[in-house]
Amino acid sequence: MRSYVAEIISVGTELLLGNIVNTNAQYLAEMLSLYGINVYYQTVVGDNPARLKAAVEIAAGRSDILIMTGGLGPTSDDLTKETVAACFGRKLVYNTEVEKKLREMFVHHGRITPNNFRQAMLPEGCTVLENICGTAPGCAFESDGKLVVMLPGPPRECIAMFENAVRPILEKLSGGCIVSRSIRIFGMGESAVEDALHDLILGSTNPSVAPYAKTGEVMLRVTALADTKDEAFDMTLPVIDEITNTLPDCIYGVDCDSLEERAYSLLSERNMTLASAESCTGGLLAKRITDIPGSSGVFLGGVVPYSNEMKEAVLGIPREIIVEHGAVSEQTARMMADGVRGLSGADFGIGITGIAGPGGGSDEKPVGLVYVALAARDGTYCRKMMMGTYGGRDMIRARSVNTALDMLIRHLTGRPVIANMY
Amino acid sequence: MRSYVAEIISVGTELLLGNIVNTNAQYLAEMLSLYGINVYYQTVVGDNPARLKAAVEIAAGRSDILIMTGGLGPTSDDLTKETVAACFGRKLVYNTEVEKKLREMFVHHGRITPNNFRQAMLPEGCTVLENICGTAPGCAFESDGKLVVMLPGPPRECIAMFENAVRPILEKLSGGCIVSRSIRIFGMGESAVEDALHDLILGSTNPSVAPYAKTGEVMLRVTALADTKDEAFDMTLPVIDEITNTLPDCIYGVDCDSLEERAYSLLSERNMTLASAESCTGGLLAKRITDIPGSSGVFLGGVVPYSNEMKEAVLGIPREIIVEHGAVSEQTARMMADGVRGLSGADFGIGITGIAGPGGGSDEKPVGLVYVALAARDGTYCRKMMMGTYGGRDMIRARSVNTALDMLIRHLTGRPVIANMY
Repeated sequence: MRSYVAEIISVGTELLLGNIVNTNAQYLAEMLSLYGINVYYQTVVGDNPARLKAAVEIAAGRSDILIMTGGLGPTSDDLTKETVAACFGRKLVYNTEVEKKLREMFVHHGRITPNNFRQAMLPEGCTVLENICGTAPGCAFESDGKLVVMLPGPPRECIAMFENAVRPILEKLSGGCIVSRSIRIFGMGESAVEDALHDLILGSTNPSVAPYAKTGEVMLRVTALADTKDEAFDMTLPVIDEITNTLPDCIYGVDCDSLEERAYSLLSERNMTLASAESCTGGLLAKRITDIPGSSGVFLGGVVPYSNEMKEAVLGIPREIIVEHGAVSEQTARMMADGVRGLSGADFGIGITGIAGPGGGSDEKPVGLVYVALAARDGTYCRKMMMGTYGGRDMIRARSVNTALDMLIRHLTGRPVIANMY
Repeated sequence: MRSYVAEIISVGTELLLGNIVNTNAQYLAEMLSLYGINVYYQTVVGDNPARLKAAVEIAAGRSDILIMTGGLGPTSDDLTKETVAACFGRKLVYNTEVEKKLREMFVHHGRITPNNFRQAMLPEGCTVLENICGTAPGCAFESDGKLVVMLPGPPRECIAMFENAVRPILEKLSGGCIVSRSIRIFGMGESAVEDALHDLILGSTNPSVAPYAKTGEVMLRVTALADTKDEAFDMTLPVIDEITNTLPDCIYGVDCDSLEERAYSLLSERNMTLASAESCTGGLLAKRITDIPGSSGVFLGGVVPYSNEMKEAVLGIPREIIVEHGAVSEQTARMMADGVRGLSGADFGIGITGIAGPGGGSDEKPVGLVYVALAARDGTYCRKMMMGTYGGRDMIRARSVNTALDMLIRHLTGRPVIANMY
């Protein structure tokens, strides 16, 4: 298989002014690396034909594939198609198929203006890439042995078009189908994972195994290339087995997106429910669970008893417990978990109390001390975390919620709930 | 004042692989535009000396200022300083001042390795830029009329170094001090703001006025350049007055970061408290308020009564109300706000109930229908929102929380709480 070099060119003055973050470039870079396509440069340039032309010429001199985003819209500063086509000696021609689709779309959206038909002007001989999330079509053509792809700027449109229309082109180019699967690990650092899987990570090319550090967790990507999707999928199976056998205790899911998604699907499958009582995380657990559409099927609700009065009034935690042990204590965490489980009638209750900082710490109870409790039918478990101040308030809160979800997932998958991790 | 062109070059293979998003480039681009410095290109390149050299040469041929991030660390793939210095014919020399600082730092952090002293090698004749958040110093030098600045890759370090060490350099360059102030607007779209302030936005150069669209809100940046900071600040005053007089109803704050920060400081100043009852937003309001350090001083707590049983058990909302009007109704929103206000003893209670989708909608109560209620001493207010499905679940939830905070801020600042906005 030939190895290709791609360059990502993002077009948009709003990127140059720092009004928006270039998430498209990150997404496209990640996708191209899955296909084994090297990216040596990414460029951002404004809605300026002369400077865009210069960027395209430089890129064409050093790369095989040019992927452009932005500047496909109907307004007069959307000049990507004209400029890029001209760089490769192509004219724009009017595409009546695209016009027809635009007319159909505007039947539902109303207000078509003459400007909108500029979107039907496309480079001669190009492949039209359908936009299922917006009006501006993309396009792709080959010229002088270079592949040129133009995608819309809005991230939703860019990603959808890549998934539907660009993947097939790259599959043809890379001579096969790519299947990429993810293994999610919690409770083990990136370097420990790399150590444990050293030979596999270095020695595997197809499937390849690559680790990524995410906030407080590690993702392993297993990517296989084969003639068909089924074949590629089958090739990943023994590698995933090997990884699962090497790290039996820390893998919380395969092909899932996050701890909350895994917890949600395990609860759904088992027809079980959850409720939460959060102090230092202030609703972050509830927020993350309810980010998932349909979460009302498993999540009965939560309380955020920031004040001791609310801990008493809502959860019935006796004032004496708080006075004797403190609001940040194993006893309080356990009573929060038990209390919200009883109150809601859920199968599981989670209680989180701690000191997220930056203020509020003491020698005895420093910032970063958090107790996380899980109340279940068979008893209540509690984990004590000492995270220190590194990463600050946001990190302490995120890791506390991660830990709560990890405890729940462990219980639901029959692994030991209390692991010594921090 | 001469006008300068800058280029941002981000160095890091993890950017090319799409492992991380390039937030540094966005931050630096925004800052440079404040100083009136044009950015025509941004480039990302890996930890590869030959390709970095090529990128630097291209940038030097088209820009006056090169700002680089990344590759200043102690490991062998951190090659930015060597490579960039060589492009401008400079050697690296050992800086004993930097060595001394590194030794002091490692007294506290432990484990100094010979590698760490590579960080004391810096381009001959450069200005050393102190790193207050990490170990790798940055540097700046002028060569052939070009200003070259190298900053560390980790965003915390990059931003802190820019604020402390690069701003003074840019102030010298732009011949004065910049003061930039922000006006926050909620309840008015970007184009409506632009229409209302058309002459001011187009006609003002110093101070300049520029609008930015943020999630569901608009920020106006007023930037003045003068000999001193005080002078520049004073120049912004009449412009801010003019804007405040033109848009009296929709400005929620000047020089504040977000709706929740504004709500928090207003509550703090008045020594008042808040509690929340959230259904469709699932704890997002509580999460955003408690993102703020010290929020326990004003936020007594929240409940997320996802199930009707919890609405009844915790908030005392009679089953008949829910049966008669539905969980998504003005009545329920009002009772949630009143209920959590009574339960917590807070000055204000917020109640949010609605349909965030994608499922759960009906003809009568479609996805995007949300009721937001604010209970205060003088009565309970309720706003009905019909947001449709555009933007999806996340946007519906975010806008619902924004609306709740807007109602609270309006009450605290004596503006009408119920404005007709959606």
